[in-house]
Amino acid sequence: MSLDPKIAARLKRNADGLVPAIAQQYDTGEVLMLAWMNDEALHRTLTTGRATYWSRSRQEFWVKGDTSGHVQHVKAVALDCDGDTILVKVDQEGAACHTGDRTCFDADQLEIALG
Amino acid sequence: MSLDPKIAARLKRNADGLVPAIAQQYDTGEVLMLAWMNDEALHRTLTTGRATYWSRSRQEFWVKGDTSGHVQHVKAVALDCDGDTILVKVDQEGAACHTGDRTCFDADQLEIALG
Repeated sequence: MSLDPKIAARLKRNADGLVPAIAQQYDTGEVLMLAWMNDEALHRTLTTGRATYWSRSRQEFWVKGDTSGHVQHVKAVALDCDGDTILVKVDQEGAACHTGDRTCFDADQLEIALG
Repeated sequence: MSLDPKIAARLKRNADGLVPAIAQQYDTGEVLMLAWMNDEALHRTLTTGRATYWSRSRQEFWVKGDTSGHVQHVKAVALDCDGDTILVKVDQEGAACHTGDRTCFDADQLEIALG
């Protein structure tokens, strides 16, 4: 089985066949990380309940938590209005970030300096 | 003035010189939309307090709300752990989505069908 053709028809992929996927903690609303999915990663995410990405660096599927234990249990998945972004609401076990931070956005806050 | 070189040095851009930027409502945590920034759009976002993107379709800067009135007032900006995604926390006036929906992810919920 592969991705539902009705969903596949709505996806707008980049030149590498990928769509950015935002992972968000479903209850607190924290934005955890951004990763990338191809059609098969989205299919696996929808049918296994485990957030599954395409690793651009390793060029392989990446079931979040398989190595780290920091599993993302999928609660809801939505496409945006033009089909070029995926929002995955998950229940994140432990840290989402490989650095050990809860989210990938915790460490590098930029200063806003209104002119 | 252009983007602080210390920030520019941490940014990882795609082949078009762009970085995905996630816009999130700062108080409710809603993920509003994903758009794209180049260095100058990020600089303007940090220094004007108005979320500013690079429109890939129009190939021009896009100050969110200039046409629609649906301004994004910038509250906080962060880079992710590897500098290839930006999280912009904003106070969104009205609808974030051009369809009139509050967020770009409201209309197309995908069914999770665990095997």
